[in-house]
Amino acid sequence: MIGVVASLKVQPDKTAEFEAVFLDLAAKVKANEPGAIVYQLTRSKTEAGVYKVLELYASADALKHHGGTDYFKAAGAAMAPFLAGRPEIEYLDAVE
Amino acid sequence: MIGVVASLKVQPDKTAEFEAVFLDLAAKVKANEPGAIVYQLTRSKTEAGVYKVLELYASADALKHHGGTDYFKAAGAAMAPFLAGRPEIEYLDAVE
Repeated sequence: MIGVVASLKVQPDKTAEFEAVFLDLAAKVKANEPGAIVYQLTRSKTEAGVYKVLELYASADALKHHGGTDYFKAAGAAMAPFLAGRPEIEYLDAVE
Repeated sequence: MIGVVASLKVQPDKTAEFEAVFLDLAAKVKANEPGAIVYQLTRSKTEAGVYKVLELYASADALKHHGGTDYFKAAGAAMAPFLAGRPEIEYLDAVE
């Protein structure tokens, strides 16, 4: 399994718009990607506008497939105007 | 749901011992905590000795219960000698 923690900083007055785009993306991931075992948006309890996406994939291929889907690319373009900086993506190997 | 990302730095020559203790803990969490929906140890692909635990709990009560179990406390004591610093624990609210 592969883990990902994606950190996203959102403009404080655009969090509702961002969440709507992301939750639509998450629903599509859940419906279409059996290899995306966990794909959960979370919000910092302490830093306004800071989100982390906790992700687990069955394989490197599943992660690659995720990033190549049309709906992922469309969501990235749709949420870009709401971000306050470039996303930070950390890739991790599951220890099993 | 509540999210947690726990960051642990392990002494480079103690990673095997640390992983053994943590995987035993993870098995006990899986066997005993239906409220711990995700509890996955991962290893940084880039920083030696750096681990992140990706965690999702059904509720704040489930997280509190996890921290109060005897096996969690025992694992914490067992892995402490292998760590290279204090764990950093980030608490997150799931966006659903």
